[in-house]
Amino acid sequence: MAKKQISKEFNLQAMRKLFLEYIERGKVKSDIILPPDTVKIDNLNRKETLHRLYKLVDDVLEKIYKSGRPSIELPSRSGTNIIWDEENDLLLLGTQIVEKQFHTLTSVADITRLMRVLEVVNELLNEDIHATKREVFYTDVNLFLEQKNSDKSIEDVASMLYTTRNSTHVVAAPKGTCVGRLRIRDKSDIIDLEGLGSGGWTISPMLDNIDIIESDAEFILVIEKDAAMMRLAEARFWRKYPCILLTAQGVGNVAVRMFLKRLSKELTLPVFALVDADPYGMYIYSVYLRGSKRLSYESPFLATPNIKLLGLLTRDLDKYKIPQEVRIPMTAQDIKRSKELLQEGYVLKNKEWADDIRLSLKLKIKAEIQSLSAHGFQFLTDEYLPEKLTTGDWIG
Amino acid sequence: MAKKQISKEFNLQAMRKLFLEYIERGKVKSDIILPPDTVKIDNLNRKETLHRLYKLVDDVLEKIYKSGRPSIELPSRSGTNIIWDEENDLLLLGTQIVEKQFHTLTSVADITRLMRVLEVVNELLNEDIHATKREVFYTDVNLFLEQKNSDKSIEDVASMLYTTRNSTHVVAAPKGTCVGRLRIRDKSDIIDLEGLGSGGWTISPMLDNIDIIESDAEFILVIEKDAAMMRLAEARFWRKYPCILLTAQGVGNVAVRMFLKRLSKELTLPVFALVDADPYGMYIYSVYLRGSKRLSYESPFLATPNIKLLGLLTRDLDKYKIPQEVRIPMTAQDIKRSKELLQEGYVLKNKEWADDIRLSLKLKIKAEIQSLSAHGFQFLTDEYLPEKLTTGDWIG
Repeated sequence: MAKKQISKEFNLQAMRKLFLEYIERGKVKSDIILPPDTVKIDNLNRKETLHRLYKLVDDVLEKIYKSGRPSIELPSRSGTNIIWDEENDLLLLGTQIVEKQFHTLTSVADITRLMRVLEVVNELLNEDIHATKREVFYTDVNLFLEQKNSDKSIEDVASMLYTTRNSTHVVAAPKGTCVGRLRIRDKSDIIDLEGLGSGGWTISPMLDNIDIIESDAEFILVIEKDAAMMRLAEARFWRKYPCILLTAQGVGNVAVRMFLKRLSKELTLPVFALVDADPYGMYIYSVYLRGSKRLSYESPFLATPNIKLLGLLTRDLDKYKIPQEVRIPMTAQDIKRSKELLQEGYVLKNKEWADDIRLSLKLKIKAEIQSLSAHGFQFLTDEYLPEKLTTGDWIG
Repeated sequence: MAKKQISKEFNLQAMRKLFLEYIERGKVKSDIILPPDTVKIDNLNRKETLHRLYKLVDDVLEKIYKSGRPSIELPSRSGTNIIWDEENDLLLLGTQIVEKQFHTLTSVADITRLMRVLEVVNELLNEDIHATKREVFYTDVNLFLEQKNSDKSIEDVASMLYTTRNSTHVVAAPKGTCVGRLRIRDKSDIIDLEGLGSGGWTISPMLDNIDIIESDAEFILVIEKDAAMMRLAEARFWRKYPCILLTAQGVGNVAVRMFLKRLSKELTLPVFALVDADPYGMYIYSVYLRGSKRLSYESPFLATPNIKLLGLLTRDLDKYKIPQEVRIPMTAQDIKRSKELLQEGYVLKNKEWADDIRLSLKLKIKAEIQSLSAHGFQFLTDEYLPEKLTTGDWIG
């Protein structure tokens, strides 16, 4: 038994070494290099964002003085300006510009909202505080009328400043937990994520205040479900298998995805996903992998293109002798969604992934991570994950 | 401005002193004293639970030897055995006992499930690990068939051992965050909840491993929404107003409610709730106050009877000049649910609370905590909460 453990730990280090070699040889992407016909978006600190904001206002004022006709330019987020970057498999924003002018009635409401959000962002940055989209809406309900209008203006402001929404200090509400071999700084607090017991660190959405100090982890594991996270936290999984664990209760929000991206990039660590073997689990994995369509212009800061699908795979079910009775029959909706997945380019170009989805369709079954507990509660931490990780049994 | 702050801090201490005096004079309940005709449930540690488990098995075996007819006795959880404790306003379990015998076909399935859960609980306690209800279901899907069957057996086992579900190591998945002036121990980790930046500690459901070490907080604030929690965490609210902050993203699950109860009891601190001014917010407050109906036999460990409704009150809307446009018209469903609340004994006996709900019905409006940001993002932390706390403007 002791021998087996040593060999597993050794293999983990080998995996890490291989990962770094692959990055050097360009076989694994450490980060995204944008194609030339796309807009470059920067993740800015507070002062840089303020600087861009002032410059923008100056430009608008100058235009008014010169032409007498105020207007604002921003990158178009319409369908024709969304570009599929095949190399990186990301949806990105093209270089088309739209000009918003003050001289029609509808544009007046639109531009007044934009100016209001600029004002709010200016306040947030100057006072160095953060707000959620809902709070921004509540600053002037008469003007915004519906939250979708303020949300649109917030995205307009971020894109006209050529920066991420987080850089404007408009953030998502906290959701998600991180634990493991990691030390971070949040303003004056140094937080050791190995010493939080069986709980964890609630990931702050104010990522501009967070510095990643150090880590001796060999990999990052992203977990769909809190219950699986609890199992790993209880086992202090990171002590035996040096890692960082992260969960977001389903689909990761912007803060969690951005935090994961930073961890993976700044620490140059391989990332693995543990999701349910069903279409929703596959969707969650794909959002970490390539971002969501709505926030395509932020993709480079939200997507983790090196993330691997560790499990639960449909092919694992037989391999790990998961009993028939804990496999769940697919619903008509599951079958429809799985078939749709098999039409997506990003799935088809990954043969192993497509094969596993095809297998699920052939068997017409799905399975939850928790189905592993049919072999005992510690099967996940003591058998399944170690074996998958040390034998390189993942997809991606 | 400085003078105002000093006076506010002074008042906070006065509030705390008053709270302790009230407890002494019996005006505020520090904890629940059960009426004599109810079942006494204990929160046990691992060894005590194991001890009860062994004794139970011995008793069953003895009965088989003596009568040849195996049976198990447990407190009845049927409607006729649920007792409303008017004094504490809690639903409790009476002293009726049911005897499950092995000799009918349906009881065989039932008792086999019960034995399986006893086996699982024995394993969990012996190995000192925890599992969720879902995981317990997956240990034997053939036997349980549906999760509601294993859930029922889990509750049967807890009640036949006269202990809480948490004591059997079957726990809820993690949900909820805590920050502020508090130090706890989780096995060998000492966690300072003041030093977690703008994030927080994800509350572990394995509360039997948690010791509350120390706190210099003057009160506890329970918050319905993550976004409000974020605002308070960003302001490091606990530095100026010594407190512990807790959120559970809506209705608190068993782990959060039990943790709050322990904090309030072990530290003898007043507890305040900050929820939306709508029927759902009132429901969330009531669940912290008196527990939910389903888990009535655990109420003494889940309910915090001294919790005050700090806000958002309907009467606050005028007092704090919350603009008309951020007040939301009630739906027909809201009106129906508010009227239902006004028929509940626990609402009616609290005149101020009933009056505030009546006011909302008269105005036909509701409001979210975020509506306070109509006065600026820092209004909540710098004006509203300090004024409410220092002037004693709460209900309960």
